[in-house]
Amino acid sequence: MGEINIKRLASELNLSAATVSRALRDSHEISAETKARVMEMAKKLNYEPNPFASSLRRQQSKTIAVIVPEVANNFFSLAIKAIEEVARAKDYHVLIYQTHESGEIEASFMTSLLSGRVDGVLISPASHVANKEYFQKVSEKMPMVFFDRDHADIEGVKITTDDYDSAYNATQHLVDAGCKTIGYLAALETLTTGKKRLQGYQDALKNNNLKCQPDLIVSNCENNEPCHSKIKDFISQQKPDGIISSIEELAIPCYYACKELHLNIPKDLKLITFSNLSHAELLNPPLSTINQPAFEIGNEAATILFKMFSKRWYDPNITISLKSNIIKRESTRS
Amino acid sequence: MGEINIKRLASELNLSAATVSRALRDSHEISAETKARVMEMAKKLNYEPNPFASSLRRQQSKTIAVIVPEVANNFFSLAIKAIEEVARAKDYHVLIYQTHESGEIEASFMTSLLSGRVDGVLISPASHVANKEYFQKVSEKMPMVFFDRDHADIEGVKITTDDYDSAYNATQHLVDAGCKTIGYLAALETLTTGKKRLQGYQDALKNNNLKCQPDLIVSNCENNEPCHSKIKDFISQQKPDGIISSIEELAIPCYYACKELHLNIPKDLKLITFSNLSHAELLNPPLSTINQPAFEIGNEAATILFKMFSKRWYDPNITISLKSNIIKRESTRS
Repeated sequence: MGEINIKRLASELNLSAATVSRALRDSHEISAETKARVMEMAKKLNYEPNPFASSLRRQQSKTIAVIVPEVANNFFSLAIKAIEEVARAKDYHVLIYQTHESGEIEASFMTSLLSGRVDGVLISPASHVANKEYFQKVSEKMPMVFFDRDHADIEGVKITTDDYDSAYNATQHLVDAGCKTIGYLAALETLTTGKKRLQGYQDALKNNNLKCQPDLIVSNCENNEPCHSKIKDFISQQKPDGIISSIEELAIPCYYACKELHLNIPKDLKLITFSNLSHAELLNPPLSTINQPAFEIGNEAATILFKMFSKRWYDPNITISLKSNIIKRESTRS
Repeated sequence: MGEINIKRLASELNLSAATVSRALRDSHEISAETKARVMEMAKKLNYEPNPFASSLRRQQSKTIAVIVPEVANNFFSLAIKAIEEVARAKDYHVLIYQTHESGEIEASFMTSLLSGRVDGVLISPASHVANKEYFQKVSEKMPMVFFDRDHADIEGVKITTDDYDSAYNATQHLVDAGCKTIGYLAALETLTTGKKRLQGYQDALKNNNLKCQPDLIVSNCENNEPCHSKIKDFISQQKPDGIISSIEELAIPCYYACKELHLNIPKDLKLITFSNLSHAELLNPPLSTINQPAFEIGNEAATILFKMFSKRWYDPNITISLKSNIIKRESTRS
């Protein structure tokens, strides 16, 4: 049995596809009798309307939403820039919404999108999540693409980076630079993104015959204020000679902590971080980074979203992974 | 003659205010005859509907728009954070829109707001402007507040900082540190903001009996790419011993230019910039900044916007100026 689409319905009913389509959307151009016939056949054949059809028909807002945890972040601002370029070429506006890592705020805004204020969504989900139903609801209503971050248990189109490999390679870089006690500043722990980064770190330690002590992993430190003292305590108590920061926001507190503890980077402690900080090179000392292809991720995600709009995208459940690269600077010099 | 409002119309017509209000918005609950009577009287008395009334009546989007040139900027991301806090307490969503300094993009988005997708607007206008009609149109339709940046020839509620004083004091600081040839990296030249900053610099030079040579002012360098070489050429040709950067984005290229020209900051060249860069202290050398009260500006602007929503704000044309402060660091040490 083939796919039940409007064409199939039309052929069964001996009507044109245009007539069936109009009947399904209750157009005044179609008689009540024809509508009834179409509805009956649709029910009989278990016709599932294309979930994007209603927004495709509208497509009047000419607006897409980009939902991110934070705009004050070089990765996201670059990704958004790329998204805007793609959207502008299609004459679309891009609205940006910040969740500040709150699942509640994310849920509330995404639910508000169901009223149809935008035609599609690009989302990098918050790390704190309550329930995830709204992802499903929104994706049934309009095209949606995950970028950078995702949840393993939610299906969808996902543009990510090689989180596992990046963390593995960064750890290996620290080992090669002579580090024996490598700390890990964890973040995004509820997300696939964070889990893969942690796994890469752990596997690299094991493969280098270094113990992977739980004490060396600092969890839950992405909330602004307490994170500075948490990191400072960690450094002074565990005395790591290397640190991998799994997000940009945790690397800067390391600089301050080392200053206060009179530790020299890289002599006493080597530091590398996931980051697209534009002036990492100007810091004292210049900061080694795992550079994600932020612009490319934004570009790819937006391009696919517009293909969904024009029905030129057929894979509702695919993960595309782009490569990051490590930029070695003074902060990890051996 | 008193103000012509709905109450006055109601009393003239011997109707209740509610009936007049419903008639004016063409409610189906009111008879055609009554509507005609109300319209006639409204015309006769030159009744001007409250420009915010229609959005106040709706107020269903529960959303405000924040229009900024760029989110990848510490000033704007802080201001937005404050706006979001105020909005969240009122159960409103905040949509962010970037103009990238283009008046055309700004006009296109603001015009799209006329369809009523948001209840109010906070805007820091783009530096490039074609015509400014849309400001007027939007402000007739819904509450609008300018923050940080504004145009002198557009009326409205404006929350700014002491741009003149800040630039004057920064220049004085460089003079006090021993600078004789002080360059100025201009930006926002079409905006009151940029004009006041430039004036503060020029007046401080004059009052210190330093010549204010046009060669020392670098104009039009806010567009990303060419700005680096423009600044490098300026430094190598004019040999300034001090530079004031009128926006954050122009300070970073100075660091790179000095590196390439083998100039030492602050020995060969002292540098101070308008900036809310959170890790100015971590740069090599730590960067002196004119710190605008970004959070306070956002907070004040949003608070006034919500007062406008609830009709508790009565001054449609006021400028509130908050104070910036200079943070002296290594980059201007004498």
